[in-house]
Amino acid sequence: MAVYTHLGAEDLAALISEYDVGELVSAKGIAEGVSNSNWLIETTGSGNEGARFILTMYERRIDLAELPFFLGLLDHLAAEHCPVPRTIHDRSGAAFRWLDGKAVALIEFLPGVSIDRPEAEQAHSVGRALAGIHLASAGFAMARPNDLGPASWSRLAEACTQEGLARIDPSLPSLVADELEFLAGHWPEGLPRSVIHADLFPDNVLMLGAEVSGLIDFYFACNDITAYDLAVTHAAWCFDNEGRGFRPEIGSALIAGYESVRPLSHDERAALPVLARGAAMRFMMTRAEDWLNTPADALVTRKDPLAFARRLAFYADRGASAFVAHP
Amino acid sequence: MAVYTHLGAEDLAALISEYDVGELVSAKGIAEGVSNSNWLIETTGSGNEGARFILTMYERRIDLAELPFFLGLLDHLAAEHCPVPRTIHDRSGAAFRWLDGKAVALIEFLPGVSIDRPEAEQAHSVGRALAGIHLASAGFAMARPNDLGPASWSRLAEACTQEGLARIDPSLPSLVADELEFLAGHWPEGLPRSVIHADLFPDNVLMLGAEVSGLIDFYFACNDITAYDLAVTHAAWCFDNEGRGFRPEIGSALIAGYESVRPLSHDERAALPVLARGAAMRFMMTRAEDWLNTPADALVTRKDPLAFARRLAFYADRGASAFVAHP
Repeated sequence: MAVYTHLGAEDLAALISEYDVGELVSAKGIAEGVSNSNWLIETTGSGNEGARFILTMYERRIDLAELPFFLGLLDHLAAEHCPVPRTIHDRSGAAFRWLDGKAVALIEFLPGVSIDRPEAEQAHSVGRALAGIHLASAGFAMARPNDLGPASWSRLAEACTQEGLARIDPSLPSLVADELEFLAGHWPEGLPRSVIHADLFPDNVLMLGAEVSGLIDFYFACNDITAYDLAVTHAAWCFDNEGRGFRPEIGSALIAGYESVRPLSHDERAALPVLARGAAMRFMMTRAEDWLNTPADALVTRKDPLAFARRLAFYADRGASAFVAHP
Repeated sequence: MAVYTHLGAEDLAALISEYDVGELVSAKGIAEGVSNSNWLIETTGSGNEGARFILTMYERRIDLAELPFFLGLLDHLAAEHCPVPRTIHDRSGAAFRWLDGKAVALIEFLPGVSIDRPEAEQAHSVGRALAGIHLASAGFAMARPNDLGPASWSRLAEACTQEGLARIDPSLPSLVADELEFLAGHWPEGLPRSVIHADLFPDNVLMLGAEVSGLIDFYFACNDITAYDLAVTHAAWCFDNEGRGFRPEIGSALIAGYESVRPLSHDERAALPVLARGAAMRFMMTRAEDWLNTPADALVTRKDPLAFARRLAFYADRGASAFVAHP
């Protein structure tokens, strides 16, 4: 949550003049994104009405060779009528430009607010929107491997070390070791694959009332097992209170919404418990690594790895019953 | 530059419903303000058009007993057609409300961008706008003493200690001591007083082209010598490169713009060199205190006290010649 780079009005006006969007009217640095700086930009627009955009400056973490995938995906999904912001191309047609040695992209602004605690109707909408991008991505020509997939989890565990994991919680080293072994033996093969969002937490969904108005932040998007994305979204949306309280009605609504657009096959449904354990493992491990690498007194908020250790334990304990329809 | 408090969409929607501004459409935490959290809020508006606001949450530093002064001042100046954002009052007429135990105010959004390096025409506009608030504040009923006026500077110097000042720069202890003595002996008396902004740096001015579209962040506003505000603005706007390069054409344009609305008296003009030394002292001392209290590795950017030590030396050296009209 930061703006890492100062961009003066003069820099911004010069940048905006490279696009056919009118003249700069307002620019506010916004507190979103952990590896990007973002500005909410207003311009006079190209017609009678003002227009708004998000200007993103890619500060680190993102491999720039992957930007065409991320930005091209937005364009593809928006053209397929998914609620996804379009990339605005400059007058020469480029999807991103260079400013101060860093890549910047101008992205459509979408209305809507992020929900902290969803209602079932909202979870249903999220399921529909997620299924929509899975179907719409079929025609997208580019591909990107999931660098936070199963192979990465044991690498992350090694990087954390047993001692490091134990410092977070004494139970963590054995939980991680046991679960890595289980997942290696049970990770499903042969399931349908597609582009997946891979990080569809509530703060990456904009809503107006019960409707999804925007899916944003596709910087973890990749090609992987389609149903794994539903499992990630399930783990991200259906728990209260840092993973302590499962909300069955939210899980049910999410899956029902998803299946109203893209019904799951028998094999996909059967794999959900394992996929959800994998999803919990993925966020537990990246959070554990961040936790061990962030000083406790840093101003950046560390996200608690144990919130996903609890979800992992829940999915391991409940199995398929975590995914049955709730009356 | 931060958002210190998380406010979920549900909290925000509930808050917005207390105002007659339509329904919440969008909310982005913005990276502005060092002692407040701010959100750029969009609503459906009360008529046909959407509306935008800044929601400010007062986190610390501001004495809440002073909020009625700050918010009332905005209303007063806006009613006098100064380019100042109005305070939006809730349905019961209150200028601020309580949320999570903290005071929050909804403030009109103004277009415009902050300029890093002004042109003369822009400085002229700033001078006119500053004079405008000085004249318009005459009818404002409330008052607030300047708690960062001359009496505070020696208190700040004591708090920094000689050793602390020397850690910033070896020349600082004697510069501060000599200058405090000079200012105590030469601070002008009997000059006109009014409400002053007292912190009109470029980031507190919004511009559209050469015109001022907004003066913002009145949280240092107080009653003090009117011409001191012009001296503060001069010190804030007329130097390049961290106080190294004086820009005479900007100083000239600022004063000419100011006098086109409110001509300075002979005594006010004569006092400008001393007032500017006081202005440089004020920012040097508050920055020195922040510097000594902020760890070098903190994520918060420390502002260099020496940038104002250089301005102080400049004003002491040049005297009245710093304020003569530039051809």
